[in-house]
Amino acid sequence: MSKQGLDAVVAVSPENFFYTTGAYISTQKLLRDRLALAVVTMTGDPIVIVCNIEESFTREESRFPDIRTYVEFAQSPIDVLAEVLQEAGVANGRIGMEMRYLSWHYSQELLRRAPLAQFQECRHLFNEIRMKKQPHEVEVLERAARVTAEAVQSTMQTVRPGDTERSLAIRLRQALLGTGAEELAFLVLGTGVRSSITHPIPSDVPLVSGDVIKLDIGGLYGGYYSDLARTFGFGERNTRRHDIYRRLAEIHRSVIGEIRPGVRCCDVFKFCQTQFERHGLEFHMPHIGHSLGVELHEYPMIEPSNQQEIEEGMILNIEPIFNDPFDGSGYHIEDLVLVTASGTRVLTGSDLDTEMQWYGG
Amino acid sequence: MSKQGLDAVVAVSPENFFYTTGAYISTQKLLRDRLALAVVTMTGDPIVIVCNIEESFTREESRFPDIRTYVEFAQSPIDVLAEVLQEAGVANGRIGMEMRYLSWHYSQELLRRAPLAQFQECRHLFNEIRMKKQPHEVEVLERAARVTAEAVQSTMQTVRPGDTERSLAIRLRQALLGTGAEELAFLVLGTGVRSSITHPIPSDVPLVSGDVIKLDIGGLYGGYYSDLARTFGFGERNTRRHDIYRRLAEIHRSVIGEIRPGVRCCDVFKFCQTQFERHGLEFHMPHIGHSLGVELHEYPMIEPSNQQEIEEGMILNIEPIFNDPFDGSGYHIEDLVLVTASGTRVLTGSDLDTEMQWYGG
Repeated sequence: MSKQGLDAVVAVSPENFFYTTGAYISTQKLLRDRLALAVVTMTGDPIVIVCNIEESFTREESRFPDIRTYVEFAQSPIDVLAEVLQEAGVANGRIGMEMRYLSWHYSQELLRRAPLAQFQECRHLFNEIRMKKQPHEVEVLERAARVTAEAVQSTMQTVRPGDTERSLAIRLRQALLGTGAEELAFLVLGTGVRSSITHPIPSDVPLVSGDVIKLDIGGLYGGYYSDLARTFGFGERNTRRHDIYRRLAEIHRSVIGEIRPGVRCCDVFKFCQTQFERHGLEFHMPHIGHSLGVELHEYPMIEPSNQQEIEEGMILNIEPIFNDPFDGSGYHIEDLVLVTASGTRVLTGSDLDTEMQWYGG
Repeated sequence: MSKQGLDAVVAVSPENFFYTTGAYISTQKLLRDRLALAVVTMTGDPIVIVCNIEESFTREESRFPDIRTYVEFAQSPIDVLAEVLQEAGVANGRIGMEMRYLSWHYSQELLRRAPLAQFQECRHLFNEIRMKKQPHEVEVLERAARVTAEAVQSTMQTVRPGDTERSLAIRLRQALLGTGAEELAFLVLGTGVRSSITHPIPSDVPLVSGDVIKLDIGGLYGGYYSDLARTFGFGERNTRRHDIYRRLAEIHRSVIGEIRPGVRCCDVFKFCQTQFERHGLEFHMPHIGHSLGVELHEYPMIEPSNQQEIEEGMILNIEPIFNDPFDGSGYHIEDLVLVTASGTRVLTGSDLDTEMQWYGG
């Protein structure tokens, strides 16, 4: 904060509110107008602002006891924020604000209520703080990754002829929740030509022998995400699909092999692109991975313009995708790795085997 | 639009994008920067703007074929929006914008890229259009409400001594997904003194005989929510809790009995408040219900300042809450009703019985 010349920073997004206070307010994502805010100044503990409905929960969960409330529909959270800025003596100061989260509507209210303050984007500050994971975060993320992978693996053992995308999806979701996830964050699943859709919603299409099953699933565990993509075969092995999977899996393994402290994200991206070319697969990805934590796509993103160096203690999802124009099959492999002093450790319980697994045959 | 003097309206939020286009882009809620937009003008079909990753899915699902894309990290969705406004000849016009959704950051970009346009909030337009449900919406919402209630009821039959909040929560979530919900939207559950927390996250606290189990659960079905709260007893019947439940359930039934076309939301709120007083329960609620649809809290909210008249075809969740200061038990009953010509029809499969149900005894 002092390096940036900021007098205060306001956490507004669900992820940064949770990261700052320790309170995971489950309605914050569903009811966007019902703001929860944490005001961090250079002196003293952060001040927490929540809707009075959430007060008792916040008192239980928040690391910080100074909690202010507003009554929904009767009072705006921005009024309380303006009072807190005033009281903290920073209403004329420079305020770091999550401008990528706070709505245009609330921003206009804030400019009226705190007309002398100067606001600037502070997302990068949170990104930098959250970039390297603390040991307790690695522990939660590793467990989440492992049990998610296990739930997928054990559900695939139950795949049978007669299954549809939807029936398989229901069992996958139930298995994920059986691992203790407090939220099913997402599940996309497509088979056959629907597998080339990036985020297919499971449909009543029955599984067809020889087709691929592509899925991407994530849950929330103690406020931290899991995020895993797998591509399997159904029924009788199809040689082309088995071969293309192997090429993608080899790319995946070599990209993970390239990750170590000091390498830049853009270089990992370019390496991946080169590997696609080397294996004869067309490359069309805007990014090939991302960090994971209290947010699904956390900084750093592994995209071509990101010069961020990879550091020990980062957690990265690597996720090459290939859609075969020949038969419309889509392939996606995603594993989570922890960056160590010399390379990486895979957290998703995978040995990065390059053989496609076939089920239900 | 013409009544408001608007030349175009831009849908930005997941709910209004889905409502406008028919495409439910599942990542839109998880990755907020990855905007999906629908630009509605007075002439021709809406123009849809999505990230290129979502193009194939959007082509399958959108009612409108004119789909423009942007490449994430290389290009901003706001650039494409500015081009579309220009091309539609409204770049100097009055644009209805979801200012309660679009972020401050993107708003600044938009003001730079479309400096001659005038922007104003258009959420109320969407609210008004979505306020009365169409028959196919009632059908989806009724089915969602019914299967959610059934999943809760059948899971409660399995409650046994030794259960914790968490073990019961896992079975409830799995049962909800077994009904075919494509997302578990939320589950909060608390027992004993934790039941007086408005949105308790299920913990490892074991169920205690005589305590209340308070839960609020919702899923997503074809893009539409279910939302149901129930309070049950565990083990041996406690007379005080049984009696307080009955009083709240009588309030609940009488409030639902008060709803019919022509009554104002604020009057229903006041009626509910009066009923609390008549039954000797303290009243502390900022709202006592809300509509439900593609959003969890839809307009109209039943809150003291809302003069909106209730109309036939509206769908309303009624949800009185009482926390007993004497023993810290919390009570919450929530049912969904459809407003008919003469009153309401309950969609949650409840007969509004006022007897508390006890399980696991």
